[in-house]
Amino acid sequence: MTGYVRNLAERARLAQREIAALDSPSRVALLEAMADAVDAGRQDILDANAKDMSRAEGKGTQGAMLDRLKLDSARVDGIVQALREVAQLPDPVGEVTRSEERPNGLRVEKVRIPLGLIAMIYEARPNVTADAAALCLRAGNAVLLRGGSEACDSNVAIARCLHRALESRGLPPEAVSLIEDTGREHVLELLQLSDLIDLAIPRGGEKLIHFVAENARVPVIKHYKGVCHLYVDRAADPDVATRLAIDGKLSRPGVCNALETMLVHADMAADWLPTALAGLASRGAEIRGCERTRKAFPEARAASDADWDAEYLSPILSVRVVDSIEDAIAHIQRHTSDHTEVIATADDQAAEHFIRAVRSSAVSVNASSRFNDGGALGLGAEIGISTTRLHSYGPMGLESLTIERYVLRGQGHVRHPDLQ
Amino acid sequence: MTGYVRNLAERARLAQREIAALDSPSRVALLEAMADAVDAGRQDILDANAKDMSRAEGKGTQGAMLDRLKLDSARVDGIVQALREVAQLPDPVGEVTRSEERPNGLRVEKVRIPLGLIAMIYEARPNVTADAAALCLRAGNAVLLRGGSEACDSNVAIARCLHRALESRGLPPEAVSLIEDTGREHVLELLQLSDLIDLAIPRGGEKLIHFVAENARVPVIKHYKGVCHLYVDRAADPDVATRLAIDGKLSRPGVCNALETMLVHADMAADWLPTALAGLASRGAEIRGCERTRKAFPEARAASDADWDAEYLSPILSVRVVDSIEDAIAHIQRHTSDHTEVIATADDQAAEHFIRAVRSSAVSVNASSRFNDGGALGLGAEIGISTTRLHSYGPMGLESLTIERYVLRGQGHVRHPDLQ
Repeated sequence: MTGYVRNLAERARLAQREIAALDSPSRVALLEAMADAVDAGRQDILDANAKDMSRAEGKGTQGAMLDRLKLDSARVDGIVQALREVAQLPDPVGEVTRSEERPNGLRVEKVRIPLGLIAMIYEARPNVTADAAALCLRAGNAVLLRGGSEACDSNVAIARCLHRALESRGLPPEAVSLIEDTGREHVLELLQLSDLIDLAIPRGGEKLIHFVAENARVPVIKHYKGVCHLYVDRAADPDVATRLAIDGKLSRPGVCNALETMLVHADMAADWLPTALAGLASRGAEIRGCERTRKAFPEARAASDADWDAEYLSPILSVRVVDSIEDAIAHIQRHTSDHTEVIATADDQAAEHFIRAVRSSAVSVNASSRFNDGGALGLGAEIGISTTRLHSYGPMGLESLTIERYVLRGQGHVRHPDLQ
Repeated sequence: MTGYVRNLAERARLAQREIAALDSPSRVALLEAMADAVDAGRQDILDANAKDMSRAEGKGTQGAMLDRLKLDSARVDGIVQALREVAQLPDPVGEVTRSEERPNGLRVEKVRIPLGLIAMIYEARPNVTADAAALCLRAGNAVLLRGGSEACDSNVAIARCLHRALESRGLPPEAVSLIEDTGREHVLELLQLSDLIDLAIPRGGEKLIHFVAENARVPVIKHYKGVCHLYVDRAADPDVATRLAIDGKLSRPGVCNALETMLVHADMAADWLPTALAGLASRGAEIRGCERTRKAFPEARAASDADWDAEYLSPILSVRVVDSIEDAIAHIQRHTSDHTEVIATADDQAAEHFIRAVRSSAVSVNASSRFNDGGALGLGAEIGISTTRLHSYGPMGLESLTIERYVLRGQGHVRHPDLQ
């Protein structure tokens, strides 16, 4: 433990007080200044990114990994635009979520305040540096950023722009603190700072998230993977079921709210299933099925046990025929990643039963699993998605970066007047 | 790791599904049955407690420690009564906290569901066994209990009663699982079960809470101590300030929402302070003051640096004279335990400034710090108090034992209709 990260965190925590003390219009103006500064610093950012790219290419990085790292002028526009969008989101800070006068005349309110200092630990995409800073500051927090070594130069260049914006508004640049030295020992040090860091959010591959979860003494909200299920009920509208299957599996197979497994009631296996699977296959899906699925659709490969827990991140769908909604629920309870589960049914009672029995962060009736993200659910930008059933469950918007606390207002109210 | 606790937790987690599936009247009836069963099992509980007491006396346990352990018929009445009160609290499960139709016609709701499996790790008072079980089950959760070795027989006897109540309602007794073997290695095992336990709540001395915090891989909500401050502003009503000081320090000095430190604006030091401190001293308080305090009230002992961080749990008050509200806020920011801070002032602007600058779980204007508990704030019974600024901050009632998740309702809604 070097004290390097502790020192950064202490200064970030002090800076947070100044961010928390700003009124909402000042925080909006700060985010607009951050957008302006990234816009103005565009060339520095692109130059820095070119260094990251050539280093990555030198190491043999290719394909999606390299694409995630890459910035061009259009992607910098995207960063600027995202900053301006977060600036315009409704401010959760100061919201009164409860207000009550107690029988003794004491007024009790619950009011949202910022969480404090948030640590983001992430990989690859340099835009996270700006996105996370924007969401944290908009909700009155400071942020301690630790990006991946592959994007090191880009992250430093973006952070410099954000610092200039903070300084231009007379605010301490330490409110956005980047751990520039990307040695892993610094992540370990960060994860021990339970007196300074209120929440750590890891974003990246399962390996990074496990490392954070296993080493953290600070609170962590995380999300390992999304194994989302579609259950096609005996009372499903066949067209609706087909739509949900195609959209869920094929509209963007590489994301966490894509479908991985379809459970089909036996009554739908004879007529609907062969047509639906043929439609999926003709659009490029690979089907891996149980024995009954393969009877209905012989082109399907045999599913192995591992298929029921797989997050494919590709156009593969595992399919199982079940005898009842209970069997579908039992399968989900066993294999759920607590992310998103969908039922296609025209039977309201079946829908309500499914909703109650399944405890994932989102349950959807006759709507695609792909709607489980901050934008689609009306939260605006999201800082991550939580499958931790604490504090925030599902997409995390600005509200998730705040906490409700009590404000009491009396006129000399005491618990034991007889003591006076 | 023996697997003993994992086995208990796996069974408790399965049992939780049956509790979560109950409707609210059935959970009320279950809690009433638990109250009846404790009432009926009174003699077994008292006999078991007699064994705990004689073992504790044999070990030389005395005073408050022994008193906390002791049960008599009146205290069993208290347990029965508490169970009936929790039964009657409003049910948070199923509450719709947001309901919106998105522009595309998709209905998005946030709905409260139970957290899942909650672990309670506690010491001494056997009533926690029943209280914690009642709160957890009322909110649809299961609970894994690990009480202290000193109350082992009492806890087993109470748990047996609760099991009989569960069985009488056709429910699995594992929904209330007690770790009967009180070896510390079992706590360590429990704290690693991040795949089974949704939340651990430690209740007891600072040593126990540190042990849990330092060894947990499961989410922990905790509270170390309460160092509560009263700031007497230059614009304070003198009578109000006196009332808050007496009530805060003396109405129950051994609890976490008692005052420990009073900060007094210099303008109040000449007239108000000597009288107020004399009043406190005449009621049995010991005053430890800064130099300026001792000028105003020479009977005060000199405060040392350690006094500003002390939770006395006794009728001692540290007092410091400050030159401004800013100095008071700076003192609080440095020494706060994030529990409760109070301002006495008739100046609304000063009050609002204090509220914004202080980020403790409760900030109180002209009302005693002693109001920061679940009962006084209208939550009913509380399972603990959180100074962790995540999920729940301040007293934790039933709502804190739930989480909001998303329910989506569509009519075949998809993200990318062009794929169809």
